[in-house]
Amino acid sequence: MPPAKPFLDVLSGQKQRIPPVWMMRQAGRYLPEYREVRASAGGFLDLCFTPELAAEVTLQPIRRFGFDAAIIFSDILVVPYALGRSVRFEVGEGPRLDPLDDPAKLASLSRRADMDKLEPVFEALRRVRHALDPKIALIGFCGAPWTVATYMVAGQGTPDQAPARIMAYRHPGAFTEIIDVLVASSIDYLLAQLAAGADALQIFDTWAGVLPPREFARWSIEPTRRIVEGVRARAPDARIIGFPRGAGALLPAYVETTGVNAVSIDWTAEPSFIRERVQSKVAVQGNLDPLVLITGGEALDRAVDDVLANYGEGRLIFNLGHGIQPETPIANVERMLKRLRG
Amino acid sequence: MPPAKPFLDVLSGQKQRIPPVWMMRQAGRYLPEYREVRASAGGFLDLCFTPELAAEVTLQPIRRFGFDAAIIFSDILVVPYALGRSVRFEVGEGPRLDPLDDPAKLASLSRRADMDKLEPVFEALRRVRHALDPKIALIGFCGAPWTVATYMVAGQGTPDQAPARIMAYRHPGAFTEIIDVLVASSIDYLLAQLAAGADALQIFDTWAGVLPPREFARWSIEPTRRIVEGVRARAPDARIIGFPRGAGALLPAYVETTGVNAVSIDWTAEPSFIRERVQSKVAVQGNLDPLVLITGGEALDRAVDDVLANYGEGRLIFNLGHGIQPETPIANVERMLKRLRG
Repeated sequence: MPPAKPFLDVLSGQKQRIPPVWMMRQAGRYLPEYREVRASAGGFLDLCFTPELAAEVTLQPIRRFGFDAAIIFSDILVVPYALGRSVRFEVGEGPRLDPLDDPAKLASLSRRADMDKLEPVFEALRRVRHALDPKIALIGFCGAPWTVATYMVAGQGTPDQAPARIMAYRHPGAFTEIIDVLVASSIDYLLAQLAAGADALQIFDTWAGVLPPREFARWSIEPTRRIVEGVRARAPDARIIGFPRGAGALLPAYVETTGVNAVSIDWTAEPSFIRERVQSKVAVQGNLDPLVLITGGEALDRAVDDVLANYGEGRLIFNLGHGIQPETPIANVERMLKRLRG
Repeated sequence: MPPAKPFLDVLSGQKQRIPPVWMMRQAGRYLPEYREVRASAGGFLDLCFTPELAAEVTLQPIRRFGFDAAIIFSDILVVPYALGRSVRFEVGEGPRLDPLDDPAKLASLSRRADMDKLEPVFEALRRVRHALDPKIALIGFCGAPWTVATYMVAGQGTPDQAPARIMAYRHPGAFTEIIDVLVASSIDYLLAQLAAGADALQIFDTWAGVLPPREFARWSIEPTRRIVEGVRARAPDARIIGFPRGAGALLPAYVETTGVNAVSIDWTAEPSFIRERVQSKVAVQGNLDPLVLITGGEALDRAVDDVLANYGEGRLIFNLGHGIQPETPIANVERMLKRLRG
């Protein structure tokens, strides 16, 4: 018998009395111990690609808070990096890539990510799995092809990722090539994360919410479905969480088509809709507003209670609706956990 | 009998064979004739507050494209201006206000907007109504209290309007005071626009989509409901369109509670959900992706067809899902209209 992992049990279909809990970006700047390691590591990608340090910051929030899952410290843009793209993280600026905003530039795109370049991520996973209490799940992840493509096309984050949306309208053939490369590379990457010790996988589609329904089906749902299918072809029991942020009323189609075991929902979700159309089919993960975690106090207590009242009768993994923000007081995370676990 | 206005007929419950059409921000920078007037007008607020010029730019897109409705050229931040707040528009920077981010600053807030300060808007409405073909409807508007408050609190636009969201969590009493002032002032402002010749009103809640359900009910739905009620108390037949952008699956609650005659929907809406839960109760307005209007070509044709296929069987006002972007080619607007009207 594998050791009990409440997080994995929820993904396998078993509701838990107290929902398992972790936080997106739980290894991050709100933690002084993270900031200390980060300061010693050089650039952001150096931290991702130094197994000893990446493993350490992955474990920090587990030690401090006893979360039910650790998520490997990395970034969705390591896949473009492994595709040979230039990826830089500039302080206070976010990521910068060489824009792929013209079909003529596609000749410069590798057709398959080089997994050797991602070996430090796999080594970090092995180290974390070795150090982690068997009751705690380890999550590997990648960005969904649409979201990764938005950064590859624009070369950076933008308010609504307009460059990729326009390229997809104007040059659907070229855009499909980028998506296809990302689908194949993401399958390789997720399988290698499983082999290195990940118990579950999350696919982050942070920019899914800017797409109209036809484009959502084509660029978010379908590539994700192919990734899930490709991973399960070699790892039939792989447990996969999707996070098409901002999908709103398009979530049921995502759930029904992709085959994910759970979806992460953002804090704007409508509870009865989610219960009836989403949680009836898969587990849900979420969905505390990261800003109420900054605020704390009674507003936080009420928001925690709301998540439990809205989704606690079904399969629930407690989480935020998006990543924890750097200015979040640690005392508020503790208060959230006390409210949740009693 | 009042002259036929297809736009108003849809709001009154009568579907039109060819849906009436206008575009949010149709008086704007994509038009060379607008840019010419804008260049002569000094600052942005000078343009809003010079009736002759505001009327002229309001009429420009009607002359060029024959839209079924004109919307008065103005800005949602004229209400804070009439409340005595400092409001500046800096080129390429967006609006700047004196932040109201602390309950201690509330003493400086007027309790009611000074309608005399908005007299130039009413004069512009009178001029437009006088010049406009009776078949063309004239739309007045205001920002919803939540959205206007997000700018008043932060002093500017931010990626997710976090300052207002945090203030609403931390100081709900103080935030309620701001909302209450905006509700009362918006009622005055909308009634005065009706008196000056507006045939219909739109309430823009551009930032509704960042709110969790409880806060959406409190800060978006309820203030809008009070405005609709307050306007109808003195203008019982007032036709009102709501636009809680990004409300997603929270739209039905908005429609059922606020009493609006129509909702504007953004381009990410899920068609069957909207038809069943929204268009069955009120008219819908929307929802072409502004980026496909930049793109043009076959992608545009297909997107126009999608809007008609998704919503054309019910009460529909054809529009964009958000404002037209400055880089939109005029030829694409013409192509959209040809596709729509045949």
